[in-house]
Amino acid sequence: MQNAMKVTILGSSSALPTSGRYPSAHVLTAHERLFLIDCGEGTQMQLRKTKIRFAKINHIFISHLHGDHIFGLYGLLSTFSLMGRENPVHLYAPEKYENILKSHLNDFDINLSFDIVFIPLSGKDPVRILDDKYLTVTSFPLQHRIPAYGFLFREKITERNIIKECIDKYQIPHVRIPAIKKGEDFITADGTIIKNEEITLPPPAPLSYAYCSDTKYFKRLASFVKEVSMLYHETTFDKTKDDLALMTGHSTTLDAAKTALNANVQTLIIGHFSARYKNIEPLVEEARTIFPETYPAIDGQSYEVGNFTGR
Amino acid sequence: MQNAMKVTILGSSSALPTSGRYPSAHVLTAHERLFLIDCGEGTQMQLRKTKIRFAKINHIFISHLHGDHIFGLYGLLSTFSLMGRENPVHLYAPEKYENILKSHLNDFDINLSFDIVFIPLSGKDPVRILDDKYLTVTSFPLQHRIPAYGFLFREKITERNIIKECIDKYQIPHVRIPAIKKGEDFITADGTIIKNEEITLPPPAPLSYAYCSDTKYFKRLASFVKEVSMLYHETTFDKTKDDLALMTGHSTTLDAAKTALNANVQTLIIGHFSARYKNIEPLVEEARTIFPETYPAIDGQSYEVGNFTGR
Repeated sequence: MQNAMKVTILGSSSALPTSGRYPSAHVLTAHERLFLIDCGEGTQMQLRKTKIRFAKINHIFISHLHGDHIFGLYGLLSTFSLMGRENPVHLYAPEKYENILKSHLNDFDINLSFDIVFIPLSGKDPVRILDDKYLTVTSFPLQHRIPAYGFLFREKITERNIIKECIDKYQIPHVRIPAIKKGEDFITADGTIIKNEEITLPPPAPLSYAYCSDTKYFKRLASFVKEVSMLYHETTFDKTKDDLALMTGHSTTLDAAKTALNANVQTLIIGHFSARYKNIEPLVEEARTIFPETYPAIDGQSYEVGNFTGR
Repeated sequence: MQNAMKVTILGSSSALPTSGRYPSAHVLTAHERLFLIDCGEGTQMQLRKTKIRFAKINHIFISHLHGDHIFGLYGLLSTFSLMGRENPVHLYAPEKYENILKSHLNDFDINLSFDIVFIPLSGKDPVRILDDKYLTVTSFPLQHRIPAYGFLFREKITERNIIKECIDKYQIPHVRIPAIKKGEDFITADGTIIKNEEITLPPPAPLSYAYCSDTKYFKRLASFVKEVSMLYHETTFDKTKDDLALMTGHSTTLDAAKTALNANVQTLIIGHFSARYKNIEPLVEEARTIFPETYPAIDGQSYEVGNFTGR
């Protein structure tokens, strides 16, 4: 059975938060598990406001070591501990962070009630960093002022759906169903072969979500996020600020839209907006000139991956 | 001229923030300067929401090194720097923090655009840590699980107010006014002595504000905050949880009220509420059985020191 994949934006600001936009943090809900992507200051308060259940977060992905993507982590880990958490937290972050975190816990005499399993990010190519029953997660390098990584969450090819009426019609025993779901034909008691296509429906296309923040434009990025259902791409600046974007290792509206177009993604969500933009609609309009299916990240809103068409 | 003293609560929660209560942070506005007291996670976002001008904060006081009182500092300092701040920040914090902050800045490759003047807190007695034209600030030890300090802000005795009509009546030259404000008599051209009390009014009583968080009850505390205009005192627990309060180094409603009563303060503000209390009114009621002038700290609200009587 395939569950929906959903992204909730906890923060859509760049380095300077505003009263309505918090620093970067996303929660991806997939197959009833929660994945936290980046953890800017205030993430735990935003989790409270969106009524997301903290305890279900077992995997935290940190794109890079700039404060607006990580300064909420210390508070969140402390809160986990105060709540008596026992499940380990899997923390995926640039390799340098392992020692920084150790020092922090030591400096503040913090004894967490749970283990942290640290998975270092490094390298110049995509790396499979998680592979479980339902999905895979791949990290890939971005191009920013410091080492930074994007993340691609992809559902595994799911099983075919058996047509309920056929179970009665062909008297299919329950023990045979798992194999049929995997694509096998069914052989009746009298030896008749019933083709798999006759008794099953194909699974829906696997959903995928990619997170790209922070990064400047570079051509190869599109190959990392090829044909994802939903791409989140940072858009710190409007199209007139391409010099500033390049200098600071960020993207403009057109940069994000170009990558979305080249990668042939289904939907583009832009965010990580500079505090200079009170109104972000013009940024969305700019991106749409290249990639029409562009929508803005808004704090507190959720977006159904593979099924979002604005509102 | 005496300006009002005003406290704005940015966070009234204890260690676990709720959707409506952020971790500890207060802004004291006195004589047009801003003093930040504690800096829990989300302080900079709360500053944005309350439209307090960041740049005017030149002094930051950290009571102790538990995350809910300091994890907003890294983000705030980064934001100061991104905004191009040049004025130094005077940081008053437990002595151990100086090296922790240095490591942090080093770990994250942060080059702040301004200097930090670090004033270490330590010792078992009150210490004058700031003394300027308008006020003094004294730190005093609290009793918590780790070294913790309270802060007392006290206006200096201000000048007497000259009665405007008397300037005309006695033809007082402007050059004489400063001395008269300091209490001197005025001698007219014909040698008549006009007593100071005839031509001036006494200044209003100096205002004072004390911040006590986190601490368990101890008798000597009242002597540190004797007769302040407004006392903020932590009240993590209701009156039935005195064992838990003692064990964790915190106060109940009655502990806070007892200190307020013994110190003969004017107004008591209670805060640092445990997340278990959705409704804090019963806590206020409990404290009022001992100290009637008790009011709750509410995120985003301001309280006029010396002139607050609820609303």
